[in-house]
Amino acid sequence: MAGSPNCDLKSLSPLQLFERVTEQGEKVRALKAGKAPKDEIDAAVRMLLSLKLSYKTTTGQDYQAGLPPKDLVLINNGTTKEEDEDLVDPWNVQTSNAKGVDYDKLIVRFGSSKIDTDLINRIERAIGQKPHHFLRRGIFFSHRDMDQVLDAYENKKPFYLYTGRGPSSQAMHVGHLIPFMFTKWLQEVFDVPLVIQLTDDEKYLWKDMTIEKAYEYARENAKDIIACGFDVNKTFIFSDLDYLGTSAGFYKNIVKVQKHVTFNQVKGIFGFTDSDCIGKISFPAIQAAPSFSSSFPQIFNGKENIQCLIPCAIDQDPYFRMTRDVAPRIGQPKPALLHSVFFPALQGAQTKMSASDPNSSIFLTDTPKQIKTKINKHAFSGGRDTIEEHRKYGGNCDVDVSVMYLTFFLEDDDRLEQLKQAYSSGELLTGELKKVLIETMQPLVAAHQERRKQVTDEIVKQFMTPRKLAFEF
Amino acid sequence: MAGSPNCDLKSLSPLQLFERVTEQGEKVRALKAGKAPKDEIDAAVRMLLSLKLSYKTTTGQDYQAGLPPKDLVLINNGTTKEEDEDLVDPWNVQTSNAKGVDYDKLIVRFGSSKIDTDLINRIERAIGQKPHHFLRRGIFFSHRDMDQVLDAYENKKPFYLYTGRGPSSQAMHVGHLIPFMFTKWLQEVFDVPLVIQLTDDEKYLWKDMTIEKAYEYARENAKDIIACGFDVNKTFIFSDLDYLGTSAGFYKNIVKVQKHVTFNQVKGIFGFTDSDCIGKISFPAIQAAPSFSSSFPQIFNGKENIQCLIPCAIDQDPYFRMTRDVAPRIGQPKPALLHSVFFPALQGAQTKMSASDPNSSIFLTDTPKQIKTKINKHAFSGGRDTIEEHRKYGGNCDVDVSVMYLTFFLEDDDRLEQLKQAYSSGELLTGELKKVLIETMQPLVAAHQERRKQVTDEIVKQFMTPRKLAFEF
Repeated sequence: MAGSPNCDLKSLSPLQLFERVTEQGEKVRALKAGKAPKDEIDAAVRMLLSLKLSYKTTTGQDYQAGLPPKDLVLINNGTTKEEDEDLVDPWNVQTSNAKGVDYDKLIVRFGSSKIDTDLINRIERAIGQKPHHFLRRGIFFSHRDMDQVLDAYENKKPFYLYTGRGPSSQAMHVGHLIPFMFTKWLQEVFDVPLVIQLTDDEKYLWKDMTIEKAYEYARENAKDIIACGFDVNKTFIFSDLDYLGTSAGFYKNIVKVQKHVTFNQVKGIFGFTDSDCIGKISFPAIQAAPSFSSSFPQIFNGKENIQCLIPCAIDQDPYFRMTRDVAPRIGQPKPALLHSVFFPALQGAQTKMSASDPNSSIFLTDTPKQIKTKINKHAFSGGRDTIEEHRKYGGNCDVDVSVMYLTFFLEDDDRLEQLKQAYSSGELLTGELKKVLIETMQPLVAAHQERRKQVTDEIVKQFMTPRKLAFEF
Repeated sequence: MAGSPNCDLKSLSPLQLFERVTEQGEKVRALKAGKAPKDEIDAAVRMLLSLKLSYKTTTGQDYQAGLPPKDLVLINNGTTKEEDEDLVDPWNVQTSNAKGVDYDKLIVRFGSSKIDTDLINRIERAIGQKPHHFLRRGIFFSHRDMDQVLDAYENKKPFYLYTGRGPSSQAMHVGHLIPFMFTKWLQEVFDVPLVIQLTDDEKYLWKDMTIEKAYEYARENAKDIIACGFDVNKTFIFSDLDYLGTSAGFYKNIVKVQKHVTFNQVKGIFGFTDSDCIGKISFPAIQAAPSFSSSFPQIFNGKENIQCLIPCAIDQDPYFRMTRDVAPRIGQPKPALLHSVFFPALQGAQTKMSASDPNSSIFLTDTPKQIKTKINKHAFSGGRDTIEEHRKYGGNCDVDVSVMYLTFFLEDDDRLEQLKQAYSSGELLTGELKKVLIETMQPLVAAHQERRKQVTDEIVKQFMTPRKLAFEF
């Protein structure tokens, strides 16, 4: 965040921040006691307030002199982690930092590659147009083997896209749209087949839910996915519960993956225990199998070697690290990946948005009024406590959820930059910023609702019927 | 074995037998030293020789004075077992006793019920004909809930049969026919639908074998099964690799079972470890699912509550103990079971016949000459070392493999009884007994080969096509 007074505080732990606040408080007291010039005192107070705000947004607590913060020690798979390490797996995203997960560290930990300017430029050359703002703004920030996909594309070799969703409840929120919006763009610029997996079996296994309910959610969610504007001639959407019973190739790939992954491995990758049901333990193979084109003989004419590219949120990477490990051992190409950051809850970037808390999210079923109320009431603000302070010191864009949401949904680069400048300089107030967000989200959700209304059961059936797509293999 | 001199030795452990031989040797020496009457000495020697033979057949070693036997301590699932406990699970059958596994103990250990005279009589009344000799001779010796199946049958409620086979190699041996011969009889007398599962996926997971090879074995084995004479209008044979990709109901039942069984449970039941692949760990659900009629919507019109009866060898019981435990939790009826004893190897009843050792078995592809050679060369004999001794003391029917095989395959009760009497009295010599067996097995295998020749790929396809059978539901 250029120009933000908090830049240098980004990398501090809660305890380090606490010490900085304490130091600065002592400095202010010393200046006042020593009758220092007003300018100098003002500058020191400004810094103190800024530090206190950073402390609050990072720890979720008000600074209290003499009471250091309790460091969050996060646990992952039974291993004690570094105090500043984020917890990221397919079921949990947790960080102690109000700015969200540290994605640079995650790239190092997961062993993936950063999507850098060179790669973005290469994509631009390959497709002959400006890359999606999700790429330009670092929302898709990490990848595996995207260079190979571009090599294939430049050599006129085919590839296909695979993404998915676990249909855990009837209503989806705007964060759920991110991978689908991006996948739709990828499909359009590369003109390739797309398969979308709805893991209703996973939801049945993990939740207190009947098979029938899980399947119903899958079909309802399919409507929201279709409403993103996918082309029925190029897209196959499938429910596991359905497709496993209709595909000659899918189960064979599942059992091949299952033969080459041990319980020890899934224990290490996913943190399963001996008390977990055998369905959970073997499920990762079901999310892995669509990475292999022979799972879709009707689309790929039985061909086994078509490269797969998976756009997904980074929390799904463990499934595909496993898949990439198995692929060469079963004679299949490794899928390539594009990873997105997490979509923050209205309450702040410490956690991923949750479909189970209606106030944590803007749902695709929300009315304009609900959207307005939710944003005004719940969207975590990086603004100051009083208008005077805000005008004086400016808002903190790094932790402000309205800024984050606009980064996802406001396509106009210039406008976004102006808003951020005005907000961090204190020119734009929190209420004004929220108004821009409300005016961005209301038509976006309304347009989605309008498109969704057009999605009949018949159209869902078309998308979910195993068939040849508009490509020759 | 009525009239056998070894009856009372059946229940002795190797160490107890060792002590009896030692005692008897001392008795003989004492009688000789004391110049006892010839008759008395002869009787004691006869007993000594008989004890030595029992010792040899039980331990596999010659009796050596002063050198007690090393007790076989068998391991099951990492637990040290009683020295005289047999090892029985789906992959191992092992006993230290030449007479084979102690089935009465197994009934107690597995918690099943003995098929007693009352049950056999009830079956006879229900079907209005003499029960199969496998029932009369204790070859099917144990059951679960067979009374309930008969209740249903007597009340005109439907049930169906389910059996199966793991297609591990192209050639099957005569022992593999036992469950199918019995199932065919059950199907005929009760006139019910039958489903036969070929677990090619299991074989792929457990063996060093490609998916294609496992599927090929399944189709080849289907020919041998069909050659048993099943009615195509009443029988559905399926390969897992095939049927899972064509059935709407099968995968749903699999995932239901998988949700209700933990790794801890399959570890306890099947002895899986953390190093086992996740395919093995979740496989038991795939063998469980055909116990529920909704796995076959095309046969049962989607009905969920049709009672299932499973005839199988007792080593498959762990799968169905698990299934019966899960059934009520997923709202399904528990399958009933009929358990058979194991078919002994030619070399003796210590182990189950193995398809991987050609000399351990009479294969369905063997020529009359091969059958003759194998029986003469390898069939373990309970006869004495010399003709003189045999005439004097008689053969031991309890450990004689020819007697065992005739009990399976010679349908004439009177003839079988005569042969056993003559053999144990010493009237019939080993060579003569083996001749009877050769003359029984040669036409049986030849007739099977003749029927198998008639089974075309087209007929296999008919049996393996999911379809409605000749029953209304």
